[in-house]
Amino acid sequence: MKKIIKNGKIVTAADTYQADILIEDGKIKAIGNDLSDVYAEVIDATGQYVFPGGIDPHTHMDMPFGGTTTKDNFETGTIAAAHGGTTTIIDFCLTEKGNTLKSALDKWHEKSNERSVIDYGFHLQIVEASENVLKEIPSVIEEEGVTSFKVFMAYKNVFQADDETLFQTLATARDNGGLVMVHAENGDVIEHLTKEALKQGNTDPIYHALTRPPELEGEATGRAAKLTALADAQLYVVHVTCKEAVDQIADARSKGFRVFGETCPQYLVLDQSYMEKENFEGAKYVWSPPLRDKSNQDVLWNALKSGQLQTIGSDHCSFDFIGQKDLGKDDFTKIPNGGPFVEDRFSVLFSEGVKKGRISLNQFVDMISTQAAKLFGLFPQKGTIAPGSDADIVLFDPDAERYISAETHHMAVDYNALEGMKVTGEPVSVLSRGEYVIKDKQFVGKPGMGNFLKRSTFNKAIQKESVVTK
Amino acid sequence: MKKIIKNGKIVTAADTYQADILIEDGKIKAIGNDLSDVYAEVIDATGQYVFPGGIDPHTHMDMPFGGTTTKDNFETGTIAAAHGGTTTIIDFCLTEKGNTLKSALDKWHEKSNERSVIDYGFHLQIVEASENVLKEIPSVIEEEGVTSFKVFMAYKNVFQADDETLFQTLATARDNGGLVMVHAENGDVIEHLTKEALKQGNTDPIYHALTRPPELEGEATGRAAKLTALADAQLYVVHVTCKEAVDQIADARSKGFRVFGETCPQYLVLDQSYMEKENFEGAKYVWSPPLRDKSNQDVLWNALKSGQLQTIGSDHCSFDFIGQKDLGKDDFTKIPNGGPFVEDRFSVLFSEGVKKGRISLNQFVDMISTQAAKLFGLFPQKGTIAPGSDADIVLFDPDAERYISAETHHMAVDYNALEGMKVTGEPVSVLSRGEYVIKDKQFVGKPGMGNFLKRSTFNKAIQKESVVTK
Amino acid sequence: MKKIIKNGKIVTAADTYQADILIEDGKIKAIGNDLSDVYAEVIDATGQYVFPGGIDPHTHMDMPFGGTTTKDNFETGTIAAAHGGTTTIIDFCLTEKGNTLKSALDKWHEKSNERSVIDYGFHLQIVEASENVLKEIPSVIEEEGVTSFKVFMAYKNVFQADDETLFQTLATARDNGGLVMVHAENGDVIEHLTKEALKQGNTDPIYHALTRPPELEGEATGRAAKLTALADAQLYVVHVTCKEAVDQIADARSKGFRVFGETCPQYLVLDQSYMEKENFEGAKYVWSPPLRDKSNQDVLWNALKSGQLQTIGSDHCSFDFIGQKDLGKDDFTKIPNGGPFVEDRFSVLFSEGVKKGRISLNQFVDMISTQAAKLFGLFPQKGTIAPGSDADIVLFDPDAERYISAETHHMAVDYNALEGMKVTGEPVSVLSRGEYVIKDKQFVGKPGMGNFLKRSTFNKAIQKESVVTK
Amino acid sequence: MKKIIKNGKIVTAADTYQADILIEDGKIKAIGNDLSDVYAEVIDATGQYVFPGGIDPHTHMDMPFGGTTTKDNFETGTIAAAHGGTTTIIDFCLTEKGNTLKSALDKWHEKSNERSVIDYGFHLQIVEASENVLKEIPSVIEEEGVTSFKVFMAYKNVFQADDETLFQTLATARDNGGLVMVHAENGDVIEHLTKEALKQGNTDPIYHALTRPPELEGEATGRAAKLTALADAQLYVVHVTCKEAVDQIADARSKGFRVFGETCPQYLVLDQSYMEKENFEGAKYVWSPPLRDKSNQDVLWNALKSGQLQTIGSDHCSFDFIGQKDLGKDDFTKIPNGGPFVEDRFSVLFSEGVKKGRISLNQFVDMISTQAAKLFGLFPQKGTIAPGSDADIVLFDPDAERYISAETHHMAVDYNALEGMKVTGEPVSVLSRGEYVIKDKQFVGKPGMGNFLKRSTFNKAIQKESVVTK
Repeated sequence: MKKIIKNGKIVTAADTYQADILIEDGKIKAIGNDLSDVYAEVIDATGQYVFPGGIDPHTHMDMPFGGTTTKDNFETGTIAAAHGGTTTIIDFCLTEKGNTLKSALDKWHEKSNERSVIDYGFHLQIVEASENVLKEIPSVIEEEGVTSFKVFMAYKNVFQADDETLFQTLATARDNGGLVMVHAENGDVIEHLTKEALKQGNTDPIYHALTRPPELEGEATGRAAKLTALADAQLYVVHVTCKEAVDQIADARSKGFRVFGETCPQYLVLDQSYMEKENFEGAKYVWSPPLRDKSNQDVLWNALKSGQLQTIGSDHCSFDFIGQKDLGKDDFTKIPNGGPFVEDRFSVLFSEGVKKGRISLNQFVDMISTQAAKLFGLFPQKGTIAPGSDADIVLFDPDAERYISAETHHMAVDYNALEGMKVTGEPVSVLSRGEYVIKDKQFVGKPGMGNFLKRSTFNKAIQKESVVTK
Repeated sequence: MKKIIKNGKIVTAADTYQADILIEDGKIKAIGNDLSDVYAEVIDATGQYVFPGGIDPHTHMDMPFGGTTTKDNFETGTIAAAHGGTTTIIDFCLTEKGNTLKSALDKWHEKSNERSVIDYGFHLQIVEASENVLKEIPSVIEEEGVTSFKVFMAYKNVFQADDETLFQTLATARDNGGLVMVHAENGDVIEHLTKEALKQGNTDPIYHALTRPPELEGEATGRAAKLTALADAQLYVVHVTCKEAVDQIADARSKGFRVFGETCPQYLVLDQSYMEKENFEGAKYVWSPPLRDKSNQDVLWNALKSGQLQTIGSDHCSFDFIGQKDLGKDDFTKIPNGGPFVEDRFSVLFSEGVKKGRISLNQFVDMISTQAAKLFGLFPQKGTIAPGSDADIVLFDPDAERYISAETHHMAVDYNALEGMKVTGEPVSVLSRGEYVIKDKQFVGKPGMGNFLKRSTFNKAIQKESVVTK
Repeated sequence: MKKIIKNGKIVTAADTYQADILIEDGKIKAIGNDLSDVYAEVIDATGQYVFPGGIDPHTHMDMPFGGTTTKDNFETGTIAAAHGGTTTIIDFCLTEKGNTLKSALDKWHEKSNERSVIDYGFHLQIVEASENVLKEIPSVIEEEGVTSFKVFMAYKNVFQADDETLFQTLATARDNGGLVMVHAENGDVIEHLTKEALKQGNTDPIYHALTRPPELEGEATGRAAKLTALADAQLYVVHVTCKEAVDQIADARSKGFRVFGETCPQYLVLDQSYMEKENFEGAKYVWSPPLRDKSNQDVLWNALKSGQLQTIGSDHCSFDFIGQKDLGKDDFTKIPNGGPFVEDRFSVLFSEGVKKGRISLNQFVDMISTQAAKLFGLFPQKGTIAPGSDADIVLFDPDAERYISAETHHMAVDYNALEGMKVTGEPVSVLSRGEYVIKDKQFVGKPGMGNFLKRSTFNKAIQKESVVTK
Repeated sequence: MKKIIKNGKIVTAADTYQADILIEDGKIKAIGNDLSDVYAEVIDATGQYVFPGGIDPHTHMDMPFGGTTTKDNFETGTIAAAHGGTTTIIDFCLTEKGNTLKSALDKWHEKSNERSVIDYGFHLQIVEASENVLKEIPSVIEEEGVTSFKVFMAYKNVFQADDETLFQTLATARDNGGLVMVHAENGDVIEHLTKEALKQGNTDPIYHALTRPPELEGEATGRAAKLTALADAQLYVVHVTCKEAVDQIADARSKGFRVFGETCPQYLVLDQSYMEKENFEGAKYVWSPPLRDKSNQDVLWNALKSGQLQTIGSDHCSFDFIGQKDLGKDDFTKIPNGGPFVEDRFSVLFSEGVKKGRISLNQFVDMISTQAAKLFGLFPQKGTIAPGSDADIVLFDPDAERYISAETHHMAVDYNALEGMKVTGEPVSVLSRGEYVIKDKQFVGKPGMGNFLKRSTFNKAIQKESVVTK
């Protein structure tokens, strides 16, 4: 059925204006003043911002980690995402040495199919650059629509790949138009520092941070950026947390290299002191890279504002405090790494960014939605409000005030790392391809209504002249 | 009369999509697929890009300089601009010590009123920060709609202001929401080098470049940026030409300061060797700062791509080769400084930037139009294609090929510094507030149809949440 | 009479070793183990360091400033210097617009002749680069032995020279082998900030610091360094205080430019908080550039250690608290700028530098003596312990502990800015050209025993292959 | 027997002066004017420089590599070294996984004992940081006098250690006062690029350079420096060749970290174009890191001059062109890596550095001798001319001119990479602990006269206050 959203203030990565939107067949048909259609349902958006749906390029749903599995699966996780204004996620598909990439994708389709309430795509982990794996990459890109590949420089003896693997992945991705993502921390040195900490009986959560100092993120980020430059490839650094890493990305970009960076809400509003909370509460804040000294928050905001970082991911990876996080009660290395942020990513960036004058409204949309669409081959189907695009739309009350809390959130996890934080601005209704997922803050969708998205390549996106190559 | 532009590919700073545009009362009324209106004139834009009209933030029309006056006045200059796809200019209004700012504006209104064929605004020069001048600034901003102020760090004993003047201007602009612009070259050292050159009998045009080395632009740019940071004000560096200056701007921005930069087409495609042309032809390329070593072209493109520079100005300041430039036949210091670029700014950036893959289509629009609108308080009236905005629109044939030449250009000057350059892409028709100025490459407007634009302040633009604060 | 210093540990900029020194005719004749000479007076230096006499390249004796005159003249000042282990000073000779350089030197000779108890030279201020002044420089260098020239970038309308003057001085010095020194602060902006502070009734000493922020020192230092690079000249930046300035010097040096820097003990051990002392005591710490935030101390130590800064000057410029500093009781701009450091420079650097492990013994000698000798054309006559050099020698007890105090110091000023500071290490005896000036901590010399030193040029020093060109 | 060197110009890292030197019992007894001793042999050094003997901190004698062994053993190699003015070498002792460090040292003692004609010490390779190896390090330092440890970041699957090993070595060295050395190139990426080159049939010597681009040296250097900073340890980067690496070292040093760098004569005077010589002659220039673009030569000279690099090593590792280098005729990876430079290191630095005005005489001595002595725990026994030091002395004719050639050199290798190069300045006679090794350019020593040097630790050197901590 057709819909008209009337009287809202439409915001894109470039524009802010008052107009109506006509939706037909799940797509935006027209935008203008005083639109009318007798067959259309009219939605009154007076006083509301009308945003393109958020795109979260970094989630881990239903993912095994350290002998347990993340609490949110594709159903609970995407329902929470939708509540928070996100209409697309790109989830990380883990692979195993020796197995085909295709088999890993099959497993991930099984997890998500018939469960997700919003559209979704997959990134694919590269853990080894064997001949078979490298050979499979072109078909994964062309046939499976999976066009981005993640290499871990940390988690020694688990996920960590060596520099030869990273470089081969970069070279293969370059040849096939893929985008390489890195988790940038020096896993070798972390391994040593961790062993030393345990040897000395330092088992509290704070040691998770102290054994992963920012210098090691800066080092690995610079290394990945330099290898990317040498390979003439493209790189996306996930979860950038600190000045040491930002400086390396900015340096590469100033020389014209295609290096991009993501940060996460947790790094913008929390800091390392949270990990020292008593009664093992610090474990709620254990993820990698760890929270940093507060001075890094300004660095990250400035990097977002000046265009050195492009996107905001949630790195959503939720584990219960009771029953999961407490596996590491006596040994911080056993605490499952991750936190629950898929629901609050959108609101936190609006509240802390736009409302506090750190970024403009247009920059907000760019970071929360548009840039991810462009970098990951979803634009202009996703990531904007324009005729022809999917009607993934968030009606947002910019003045609503609420307190984040595990009692009210929709994620399947027993705590919220932002518990008690006041945010201004809240999604009221959320449409996915023109259908309500959230209506007046209530979930009205159903599992499986989300589609898997075959994505274009980074290179094709450029050819379409739609990517901001910044 | 209403118009509908059909079947074009609309491009904004964020989006690229196929849709129709309905224009009514000089404004964009609606954008959508299959728009129709029986009362509207239909314009077929099949195969064309539909761009927001270009905004040239840096022109000098009808300006006295060194005993002569620029060849283009507001009539010839804006007709040429329109041919080239530009629908708004912001011209520099010169002031004189001892006189009021208002009296200077009056003179500039006289020059432009009834002549300009496109909309226009003024920047205002600050040559001294006397008590009277500083007192007048708030009313100039509020009542006259002139919200940007230019300080020269070069042209000793002519335009040059000292650092105390610059700092006072920054502080006053900050308090009143204005934006300060600088011509950043160290005029003191240029003065010395120039005297030395003449003393040694070095009078050829190339000495204009050799007495203004890039180090002096870098120095002055850094100085202005640091004073801006200290004053917590906002700065716009005009005509950035070299690595030395780009580095200073990038450094300030990485620390979160509000420092912006413009470059010009001439610096992107020409280099210092042109100034060595025989038969005094080098004089055609004499302007300040001078053309640089070719290696700087990549630096400037990378700075544009990565968001360190925001806009493209033409610095249009046209003098005939015969009768004006030749005043300096025996003494390069007597060559009127300036070149004719208002007409080709738009096409050159498209051809060299988009067509050669250096920037994306969206970045092109951002640099050629949107950013200038945002920084100088014209957005969203100007600078985009969105419901409610002025219908300043360029229909652009992306595949047309032509050679730039003085024989075919529309500027009132006897040479073209880009003579013989092949460009791909050409404006076909240009609308200003919904009216044709250029139709099928012919000028169909009339002098005086352009309106003076009272502009918002930089600060208000931020409050409206429309400025990309990058 | 001959002397033999026995059993001391000799320290030079490169070496540390146990040996005896034979002195004859005011010069070092031999160094070796078990030296003996029946005609020689034997001085037992068991347990002592034997250092070359300190060279203080930055003093202001008997200098008029703001309607008053520094408390120390060449007699009291050099006696204090000798007590502290300094055997050579280079004092700043002020000049006046319109007068010859020679007439200024005459006045300074009159002040020092028959008064100084240690050897001394002069730097010469350049306040204007008139034709006459520039013409006089070669003879001042060749005939007067004054080979270094100071330009002030601050003190607007008093000492401040413009950039054209600075550049002309650099060019002239380059052609004649001179070394240009700068006081690097942006006087224009200081002028504005000062007026604003007074306008708002901010008259306390701390406003001296707040109106001269480190950004302005960094800006001016970078400007001077860039002009030096462009002129292919040599530059010595006096009294470097902050990261902003150190970064600029390091950058120039990394590119191979001949840029050198001096810091002072006060910036290494005091910080801006001293200027907030109650009862106007902050005035004791008023000099320019002002004391900085404590974090700069580490920056300065690292710059010294890694060779980015070369020398330690005292910037001795003493005014009584009662009767002089209090001229500014109601207006910080009237406080005479300067502090008394000629006596404690040597000990403070040893105690805080060597004893606390920040620099090595050899680096200590390099900074306190050798580098100044090399840069200012006194080496190897001064600045080392080697056969043929002047026997300017300090016998130093490395373990003596004392507290600095106005009650015990020898400067003619009524307070000590380091009052109460504990230092380890103290000069016991000091020889100038083989004669005792200080013997067992008592002054035994007499006024006028110091000689004026005609110095070589910076360029000749290089030709002699004796200068560490770093 | 006693000796007196008369009338020479003595040069140390700080001083240059005319004086005589009395030598007794292999040590310097006294330095002074007009020294005399009836029992002493008098050596006339009129017109000569008297330098401390050169110290070469980087040689590979009698070393197996790729199935062959370096041509020079400890006899031929040290005779050549002595001819060139070097009186001490520190050679790299290879180790093997699984074996003790002690057993490796035994093998190296066997190679050198009774062969070396000058004094020598060993560095020790760390190829794995097993518990046994880490446990053995303290005794190696304390008992064996081997205080420096080298880790390779390149040569994957041969010498290459991972970052955990490097970090553990740094931490252990820090705790025991050792100095860690790194060969800094990213071996992983080199491995990939090498395989790719061979796969494409690119087997010529130039591909040795093209598969080891400077970016990979810069990356690894930065990585090592950052791990050192994190470990609070000390690092010495061997054979620095390029801007990418120099920048990383300078950055670490500016922050106060103990990071030091060495370059080699070959990188100062040769460039990558040599590797393209026809008839496989390019193989003569194959070593790692490879020769670089010529622009890096100025970068290295500036880094030496400004103190960012401290020492000059030869990286002497000689292989015959016929019979050894030609193992790689069909595959550049089979060319033994290395070149013959132990003999010409000293003269080339003098000729290109001092004579061409790039460094001062004192800096020359510092780089060629003193700094190596200080960093590697040999000072003041070695590295200077001062009473009490070993009489390791070079009498040097600064004006002698000669052409380097394999026909006249003393190394046991069939080519000279500097063939035909004209150098000014030549050692005439060389003393080791007061005995002639070279007399009037003839070898007069005998195998075995060189002693093994047990070296102090880096930390003890600091405690002795003799190390320039720069």
